[in-house]
Amino acid sequence: MMNLLGMWHPPGSHSGGWRMPEAIPGTDTTYEYYLDVARLAEAAKLDALFFADVAVTQSIDLLERNDPAAGLFPRAVALEPMSLITALAGQTSRLGLVATGSTTYNEPYNIARRFAAIDQISGGRSGWNLVTSQFEAEAGNYGADTHMPHAERYRRANEFFDVVSGLWDSWDEGAMVEEKESARFFDPAKAHILNHRGKYFSVKGPLNEGRSPQGRPIVAQAGASGPGRDLAARVADVVFSAQSTIEEAKAFYDDIQVQAAAHGRPAGSLKIFPGLCPVVGKTREEAEAHYLQLQELITDDQALRTMQRISGGLDLTKFPLDGPLPDLPISNGAQARQKRLIEMARRDNLTLRQVGRRFAESRSHNLVWGTPQMIADVMQEWFEEEVCDGFCILFPYYRRGVTDFLELVVPELQRRGLFRTEYEGRTLRQNLGLSMPPTRFKTAVK
Amino acid sequence: MMNLLGMWHPPGSHSGGWRMPEAIPGTDTTYEYYLDVARLAEAAKLDALFFADVAVTQSIDLLERNDPAAGLFPRAVALEPMSLITALAGQTSRLGLVATGSTTYNEPYNIARRFAAIDQISGGRSGWNLVTSQFEAEAGNYGADTHMPHAERYRRANEFFDVVSGLWDSWDEGAMVEEKESARFFDPAKAHILNHRGKYFSVKGPLNEGRSPQGRPIVAQAGASGPGRDLAARVADVVFSAQSTIEEAKAFYDDIQVQAAAHGRPAGSLKIFPGLCPVVGKTREEAEAHYLQLQELITDDQALRTMQRISGGLDLTKFPLDGPLPDLPISNGAQARQKRLIEMARRDNLTLRQVGRRFAESRSHNLVWGTPQMIADVMQEWFEEEVCDGFCILFPYYRRGVTDFLELVVPELQRRGLFRTEYEGRTLRQNLGLSMPPTRFKTAVK
Repeated sequence: MMNLLGMWHPPGSHSGGWRMPEAIPGTDTTYEYYLDVARLAEAAKLDALFFADVAVTQSIDLLERNDPAAGLFPRAVALEPMSLITALAGQTSRLGLVATGSTTYNEPYNIARRFAAIDQISGGRSGWNLVTSQFEAEAGNYGADTHMPHAERYRRANEFFDVVSGLWDSWDEGAMVEEKESARFFDPAKAHILNHRGKYFSVKGPLNEGRSPQGRPIVAQAGASGPGRDLAARVADVVFSAQSTIEEAKAFYDDIQVQAAAHGRPAGSLKIFPGLCPVVGKTREEAEAHYLQLQELITDDQALRTMQRISGGLDLTKFPLDGPLPDLPISNGAQARQKRLIEMARRDNLTLRQVGRRFAESRSHNLVWGTPQMIADVMQEWFEEEVCDGFCILFPYYRRGVTDFLELVVPELQRRGLFRTEYEGRTLRQNLGLSMPPTRFKTAVK
Repeated sequence: MMNLLGMWHPPGSHSGGWRMPEAIPGTDTTYEYYLDVARLAEAAKLDALFFADVAVTQSIDLLERNDPAAGLFPRAVALEPMSLITALAGQTSRLGLVATGSTTYNEPYNIARRFAAIDQISGGRSGWNLVTSQFEAEAGNYGADTHMPHAERYRRANEFFDVVSGLWDSWDEGAMVEEKESARFFDPAKAHILNHRGKYFSVKGPLNEGRSPQGRPIVAQAGASGPGRDLAARVADVVFSAQSTIEEAKAFYDDIQVQAAAHGRPAGSLKIFPGLCPVVGKTREEAEAHYLQLQELITDDQALRTMQRISGGLDLTKFPLDGPLPDLPISNGAQARQKRLIEMARRDNLTLRQVGRRFAESRSHNLVWGTPQMIADVMQEWFEEEVCDGFCILFPYYRRGVTDFLELVVPELQRRGLFRTEYEGRTLRQNLGLSMPPTRFKTAVK
């Protein structure tokens, strides 16, 4: 059976979605709407809900120039995702909860503590989406005048993971004995000091948080560049990917699995989930009309702007909208995504406007419109061709864009025996069918 | 009427409390016990529950030396407090939630985001206990070989506050307009870029979180040294203090209020709460027996160890337990607390063992044992003498150490008309009787 994760990024993954007549405003600031999405996802038995993050207001450069167009772009504010899933952990019982935590602008001791805490609170349902921060402008909020180069961000990310995962092994199971008579609170033989000294970090440990109910929190990764794939193959339990054809997905899947094996990881220790943005209608005609209505709501500004962060520094507004996509310098942001955009433009001979709209519709992820049956057909084909282990569903807007999938498409997948009707386990790791990682301290040797 | 905050620091504020026969184990790792304390506090109408924090395992130095005595000390692990109050925010409705966030080992953009998120999730009930990290050993978890000097930590803390509070003013009320027709998502005239450039931090802003329901989260401060008092007088809404006599409390109260006035702050803009650790019995005899039983459960190791962090680097285990307190070098940790300890030892002519036990009982806070009436008498006298605005109650252990106060002493205070029987407001700021701070951008001038 496939696994399904949902991604909720207010006001929605489709750039025009928030302007739909039935879209509900306030989803960026109102906790109750996030909670509603989580409860809907749990009712549909999704493996997890995922919240992406950047540490900057989307249109900061326009805002700095006092350009009133700044206001045309959502994603100015949101509930900080690690905090958000912490609150949701107390108000859900089976749903996995995954949030982005940047390795570029955090301390590993703090990230290790936060996800260990979320894992305790949720009873083993937390996941850390390990990223390197992509946006040049994020640096300005952390005292850096320039953005750290791509390769260095990934070297730092690799070491960051080593520290965090090492800290998660600080305490063996049953270390806190609390023997009242002898006054012994914990067993020192079950405590492990990390003493990490590396290029980027020196961290002693132990972590002052207990052992995770799932051995350690799930680690997700989404980088698709060379260094991104290498990191994913080495450390990730879950990989988020972005492909729009089954051939691309197959090539990516095989490449990551081969690389994971080269890192000595057993088959099945890593699950891959391409993004899929579903636009649903009860009939083919209704679905197409739904899709076209959404596309109409993407403004040209929005289309160009969404591409801006992978333009390699080129100001795309200076080029004619009905001309071709200009040659782009290599991005210091999301390199793999830039490459796919250029290939799509060349292949389909698209104008700049068309590229922008196609990219903006779901940020280069696979948008699929159709009836629940048509969408289930696509998902079934991808899954049965073994090009993925399931999907990360990008909800296009709130609330219909969430319920359409969860209440119409999920039941269709369940009828076909492709998706669970009850949670198998208590932890996210169990539901994903991943085994418990051994602690690096198999025998206590203090 | 007085305000009451509770402090829950598992396994309890009394060093011997966890060894009481009725004390329940697992309070450091089990979220449900924290949640239970929060629900009890809310049922008793407490203003807020407060969780302190350090980023290190208490007995790390013993652990490093492979000394089995390491296991005698609790506070090896706990749920990370900022995460904890985020979860509690979703599962309570009126209780304020305050957690420590270090200015020494965090980025101001991250702290500003976290408390803004907790404030949204809780509907305006969050509080940030702004501290400088005290323990030498915390540095080892953050790549620092030595602990930052006391004065420099406070300079950094002052600038840290300026950045965080500036970021909290990033968005005016009603900035997110979400006009579907015009595609305008927010009003750029209601966004403010901070552009902070200081000695320790450069932070552009705006914060990518919406405005706090209480204007900004409550800021608490507990430093009692010179720089600590200065910081509290300048920026704090709430001050936690540690005094054991009404005279000391009066001197502290007056000093802070005079300093606050000197910073141009109106009277009543800052509330002061001395710590009080209640040990309750239904009769005087029962209360005294309860107290003596608790004192018996403090081991000598525990007593010496608790003093260790304010010993100024001196190894107290090298001195005879029945001799006097040796001369201590000035601490780079908690300087005011060290001064009070030395004064107490000289005044009461205490042996090292006696000082240690007295200090360990509630870590130099005011321990009061008695019937609910006796404890209410002490609280009433302090409050009516205007030496405080209420108290921060240090629960000695779980669960009786929590319920004794909330279910026996609080009703006595309510009968005397000294404490509320219903919450006055929806936000922590309203319940504390503090006014809404104006944004620093009174008119939008973009």
